[in-house]
Amino acid sequence: MAMTRPVITLTTDFGLIDTYVAQMKGVILGINPSATVVDVTHGIPPQSILRGAMVVGEIVEAFPADTIHVVVVDPGVGGPRRIVAVEMAGQRFVAPDNGVLSLAASRHPMTRVVELTREDFWRTPTSRTFHGRDIMAPVAARWSLGHDVSDFGEIRAPRLASLPEKPPRQEGRETTGTVRWVDAFGNLITNLGREHLPDASWSDLIVETEGTRIAGIHHYYGEAAQGDLLALVGSSGLLEIAVANGSASERLGLGVGAPVRVAIADDATATNETMPPD
Amino acid sequence: MAMTRPVITLTTDFGLIDTYVAQMKGVILGINPSATVVDVTHGIPPQSILRGAMVVGEIVEAFPADTIHVVVVDPGVGGPRRIVAVEMAGQRFVAPDNGVLSLAASRHPMTRVVELTREDFWRTPTSRTFHGRDIMAPVAARWSLGHDVSDFGEIRAPRLASLPEKPPRQEGRETTGTVRWVDAFGNLITNLGREHLPDASWSDLIVETEGTRIAGIHHYYGEAAQGDLLALVGSSGLLEIAVANGSASERLGLGVGAPVRVAIADDATATNETMPPD
Amino acid sequence: MAMTRPVITLTTDFGLIDTYVAQMKGVILGINPSATVVDVTHGIPPQSILRGAMVVGEIVEAFPADTIHVVVVDPGVGGPRRIVAVEMAGQRFVAPDNGVLSLAASRHPMTRVVELTREDFWRTPTSRTFHGRDIMAPVAARWSLGHDVSDFGEIRAPRLASLPEKPPRQEGRETTGTVRWVDAFGNLITNLGREHLPDASWSDLIVETEGTRIAGIHHYYGEAAQGDLLALVGSSGLLEIAVANGSASERLGLGVGAPVRVAIADDATATNETMPPD
Repeated sequence: MAMTRPVITLTTDFGLIDTYVAQMKGVILGINPSATVVDVTHGIPPQSILRGAMVVGEIVEAFPADTIHVVVVDPGVGGPRRIVAVEMAGQRFVAPDNGVLSLAASRHPMTRVVELTREDFWRTPTSRTFHGRDIMAPVAARWSLGHDVSDFGEIRAPRLASLPEKPPRQEGRETTGTVRWVDAFGNLITNLGREHLPDASWSDLIVETEGTRIAGIHHYYGEAAQGDLLALVGSSGLLEIAVANGSASERLGLGVGAPVRVAIADDATATNETMPPD
Repeated sequence: MAMTRPVITLTTDFGLIDTYVAQMKGVILGINPSATVVDVTHGIPPQSILRGAMVVGEIVEAFPADTIHVVVVDPGVGGPRRIVAVEMAGQRFVAPDNGVLSLAASRHPMTRVVELTREDFWRTPTSRTFHGRDIMAPVAARWSLGHDVSDFGEIRAPRLASLPEKPPRQEGRETTGTVRWVDAFGNLITNLGREHLPDASWSDLIVETEGTRIAGIHHYYGEAAQGDLLALVGSSGLLEIAVANGSASERLGLGVGAPVRVAIADDATATNETMPPD
Repeated sequence: MAMTRPVITLTTDFGLIDTYVAQMKGVILGINPSATVVDVTHGIPPQSILRGAMVVGEIVEAFPADTIHVVVVDPGVGGPRRIVAVEMAGQRFVAPDNGVLSLAASRHPMTRVVELTREDFWRTPTSRTFHGRDIMAPVAARWSLGHDVSDFGEIRAPRLASLPEKPPRQEGRETTGTVRWVDAFGNLITNLGREHLPDASWSDLIVETEGTRIAGIHHYYGEAAQGDLLALVGSSGLLEIAVANGSASERLGLGVGAPVRVAIADDATATNETMPPD
């Protein structure tokens, strides 16, 4: 099970100014010098479990089989929350069990869930303030060396803490969700996937958010004229509201939490035809 | 042609908050686990092809032979612009053909230019919004495995889209250019190279920008007293205006686009003597 | 002495927007393609030798033996300051001798100090403005290939430039220090280590800073209620003032340089009992 060049990714809310991320890398490379360590992002807003969960959902299909993802968004560090190692979607995860794996787990079955209890795999002395460095990093590094996940603790029922997020609501010909994230381009990314969209041709759908109404869902930015507002399903499979070569967030003055409604246009021909995935 | 530890660099305007860069790395490592992936910068201002072109020009001589540089500054994604693979200066490039390779190509001859058309080398399904992940990353990774560039598409004439930038103007004893970039230290970096400077001793040159006049061009920051304004030719071979241990941009209130004039001082002895390169 | 996958870390004040860091990586990988290059941080405030020194102190114990740390915080570049290669704490360092290694050196004995004078190990031409790329990066890369440190220049007395920082002052039952850094979470990190704390049970200590008085020193954030102000000894062994799931810097309006006093509470039972390290 040991890979020649195993990939270990890091997702944290530590930022890139302090040395917390580097300390984790030092610990990993001290245990497995052959690991390739990849930063996913360290720009999770401080202690935002929801954003951490989105990030895990976005990367789960982009990495090679057996990649180990370490996710340190951990407001409860030192408290009673458990830390888990999880096998899911052909990938491996080490994270606090606080909801940060829940969005990925809602779409991919979990094979095994282990609660980290075997302290002999941890860094000593084990601080109570930095479990990313002292528990999660060393367990991930040792996992990449060929250990079986069951070595690290007790096998538990494949059930994880969930997020307090309100799921999309589908009623008849319309669906309601919210803006979950504003990316660096100002795109408003919602919690609505393709599967939540009303059953009609994308060109017959209407996307509405606080006072703004967009006709049709596009497939890529280039379909709109420069500066135009458009709705499209982005590269992570979620509905987003964008401005071609501009910022939808600035244009509309909207951010995380804004409500988004998708409905079939009144004058649309009823149809089951949907556009092919892009 | 396959290197044992090939280097693939990434230059984008994606920032480090979202997961776009990590998704590209996951795709690359899934195809070639031996690649060393290096971030050049993900801080290109959104869709600034000019800054992307500068960055490519700055790194082209710093990396080992056969390094593959992936440059994703791509406002036309999904539209008709073509994506190219280019051999130039002993390095390899994968980028949209929108001008982002043009500054490097103006100084280094291109050996081969291939338009990426062979879809069997791409990631499937190929999104229309994220060609960095679905076309450029997989082609770069497969190139690093030993493919010949001609495998990826059609060989084209070695001609690329150019930038809309006005080139430096040389007239007799003076040259006029502009500030092209303000770096993190506040240095004002111009589009004037050594080759654009009037033919005289550097100490006899005058650098002028909106109301400010600097006598002489220095060789390094330490030649000026702390807080002094100075002109020098920086590490990338371009004239810059700096403040020793301070920010020239803040001091002068100037930024990208400010005009810069270099002339021979009126009282200078006519001479062909130039300072040795530093 | 050549390691199979040697680790070279980079600590600079270059930021991540410009290409300076990438140029250093290109130079390193051109000399040693097997090196694993790790970013510690490039977010040292411009030319802040004090912050650079803290960073070196924080990472010195996290990395594997023989890691080479390149530290480029170098306001005197091009001037008379020397550049040194140092063996200390089983680690190796390449840095300007301007105080940036001094905090680590005050806690760990230096084995050897070499002044870099052998120009044949440098990149040519050697710029006068970017010794990080042209001197420090190539020396680090060649050191990782198996050279002995004495190959790079003259062995000097193991004495380095120090920082202008005022050390903590201990008088009887109290100690006075200052806030040295505010991390990304808003924690106020002081220059007081465990060894500076007055000799009493941590629960009997009082931490004071400009108008604020905190009773007791905790072991981890989870010991305080959400939003509570607390003092604790953080993961790097230094006293810090924090707000559980919040920013102490914002709450108190304090930053770098704020005075911090630790005293034994008036009503404390005199005792030598100290809490075990966490």
